[in-house]
Amino acid sequence: MNDSEIIDPGTAEGGEVGLVEYQDFVSEAPFVFESGDAIPRLVIRYETYGHLNKAADNAIIICHALSGDHHCAGVYSLTDRKPGWWNHMVGPGKPIDTSRYFVICSNCVGGCQGSTGPGSINPETGKQYNLDFPELTVADMVNAQALLLDHLGVGRLHAVIGGSMGGMQALQWIISYPERVARYLALATGARHTAQAIAFNDTGRQAIITDPDWKNGAYAAGEGPAHGLAVARMMAHITYLSDKGMENKFGRSRRSRKREAGDRFDVEFEVESYLRYQGQSFVNRFDANTYLYFTKALDHFDLYGPENRLDEAFSVVEAEGLVVGFTSDWLYPPQGNREIVEAMLRLGKRATYAELAMDFGHDSFLVHAPELYELITRFLHR
Amino acid sequence: MNDSEIIDPGTAEGGEVGLVEYQDFVSEAPFVFESGDAIPRLVIRYETYGHLNKAADNAIIICHALSGDHHCAGVYSLTDRKPGWWNHMVGPGKPIDTSRYFVICSNCVGGCQGSTGPGSINPETGKQYNLDFPELTVADMVNAQALLLDHLGVGRLHAVIGGSMGGMQALQWIISYPERVARYLALATGARHTAQAIAFNDTGRQAIITDPDWKNGAYAAGEGPAHGLAVARMMAHITYLSDKGMENKFGRSRRSRKREAGDRFDVEFEVESYLRYQGQSFVNRFDANTYLYFTKALDHFDLYGPENRLDEAFSVVEAEGLVVGFTSDWLYPPQGNREIVEAMLRLGKRATYAELAMDFGHDSFLVHAPELYELITRFLHR
Repeated sequence: MNDSEIIDPGTAEGGEVGLVEYQDFVSEAPFVFESGDAIPRLVIRYETYGHLNKAADNAIIICHALSGDHHCAGVYSLTDRKPGWWNHMVGPGKPIDTSRYFVICSNCVGGCQGSTGPGSINPETGKQYNLDFPELTVADMVNAQALLLDHLGVGRLHAVIGGSMGGMQALQWIISYPERVARYLALATGARHTAQAIAFNDTGRQAIITDPDWKNGAYAAGEGPAHGLAVARMMAHITYLSDKGMENKFGRSRRSRKREAGDRFDVEFEVESYLRYQGQSFVNRFDANTYLYFTKALDHFDLYGPENRLDEAFSVVEAEGLVVGFTSDWLYPPQGNREIVEAMLRLGKRATYAELAMDFGHDSFLVHAPELYELITRFLHR
Repeated sequence: MNDSEIIDPGTAEGGEVGLVEYQDFVSEAPFVFESGDAIPRLVIRYETYGHLNKAADNAIIICHALSGDHHCAGVYSLTDRKPGWWNHMVGPGKPIDTSRYFVICSNCVGGCQGSTGPGSINPETGKQYNLDFPELTVADMVNAQALLLDHLGVGRLHAVIGGSMGGMQALQWIISYPERVARYLALATGARHTAQAIAFNDTGRQAIITDPDWKNGAYAAGEGPAHGLAVARMMAHITYLSDKGMENKFGRSRRSRKREAGDRFDVEFEVESYLRYQGQSFVNRFDANTYLYFTKALDHFDLYGPENRLDEAFSVVEAEGLVVGFTSDWLYPPQGNREIVEAMLRLGKRATYAELAMDFGHDSFLVHAPELYELITRFLHR
């Protein structure tokens, strides 16, 4: 997920969600993970926009990407200059129209923005879970969201929506809870990671776990492997963009500041400055152990099964789908998106594949793009 | 440069170079870098294969890539299981035919395999240069090679050959010493780095310089930022391959070894095992400061000039050229290779561009490939 100046945030036509507050859903019952391990208490932090109608059939859940969170629209104060990460997409009259839909976005279980994750206190020990936190899967994320929906009185979703890791959650939703989803919209995603995606994730994990400040995951709150996490983020961030997008934005532009002797490996090119800033700001808002758990959940996600086909996993699907790939996305290439829809059509399910020619790489799904707004608006309203 | 099992080393038809020894060329005169800084003494380690003819017009210099060295063909002992890095290309009867040509390969200045570099002892202080080593450019590498050729009695080269960073040296050769080169062969290269290539390099440098064992470059010989260098290498290695190549070789195959509890982030997929091995073996043979200096030299290399054209830089070129791009090379994409030849043709120079469809990414130039052998053989003999 990109929170940066490389993309023009723009906005779809429509009004603003405005001031929002997050809430915490607390389940005091044990939450059992797919692995069989459990935690005694689950907190899921979330936001909602718009109102649930009487029939309770207008709810949409938005699933966030690896570095995203529950704050996808609106601002926390009137002076808050940074709205939620999909603010341009979500609001009254916007493609995800909060005047028609009750929109929910929650921080995934395992996260570090308020939901229970490795950095949370284990009530049984009074200490942080750290690596005692159970192994995490995309199905666990979805199961926690289902509990939140129960709490909110939402039975069947009008739609589940997500890009990247959020798109994987959307696919998991229609498999784990086929009767609870009318529509799914999956963007810039895939039903499994390629070897290259695993390779990048493992390199990022190595940057973190070989940082001496990682301390086998047992670093104190507010401390941790800052250098390793920043490097992991810099590398990952490159994979979210595209060669052409970076060339258009930065090329070989240099920083105007004069470099001093001794600054031999200090920032020189604009693209270096941009990336190092991305790395540093990520360290300030994200937890390294969550990064490890989330990337492993992504690498383990695989709907293809032993026969290397998606048909068995998708056989239970009832929802209608729209899957959108982006031509310049080389982390989750168009082919992996297309194969989802090809499998659905083989199975006689209703599904549409759209491929958008945009230069922003994997992060294209987060970019101001009228063509995407149009696709999403029509899909949600039909 | 790839020294790994992902590529089939294969070999061109022909004989073996066999037993070889390296030699050191020592220049006791100060070596002045492009920056104006100088070192009092220059050592260049090199190997030669074949014999210089009486006319001294059959010499070929091979320029190595970032992590390569002077040992490009032959073995050091009869039990040496690992021949030089381009052994399949260089030998009697092979495309770079040592029965016809006198082939030279030297370790670049700034390197860590015997030539003077940041890890060498400064004779004026008795201590390692470390970051006191002058800023390094591709032109410096070529200037040091020119001194070596003087020493060897080679005036004009039959050809200069190189891939990747070696290709940049080939381009620099025909600009710095137009009268000394009859032919250049540049593979998988470019006349400048893209923003994306700079971004990857800077991320690798950050991995190294934020490793506490880097110590601002002043680590002791045999010590250093092993973790950071391994991460830099893992990441770079991904950029040398291709998505398809990695998928074909590894896919999502898992290691058969059973993982223990507590091994949560230990090797799980084959591709992780492969990359971690690449990272570790690199640490054992390469110096972190050289990695910093070489990557900066690459990032600074830019023949396009202020008008964003290659024409001015190439106006002095006399040599005939063959430039080869590879379809799956996304680090030095085909377009950047093609533009070299387009500029040469605009200027009325003799140059040919060939684009080979191979799945091995940037490392394709190091792979057993009869089509490439054919191209090179014919180009060198004409």
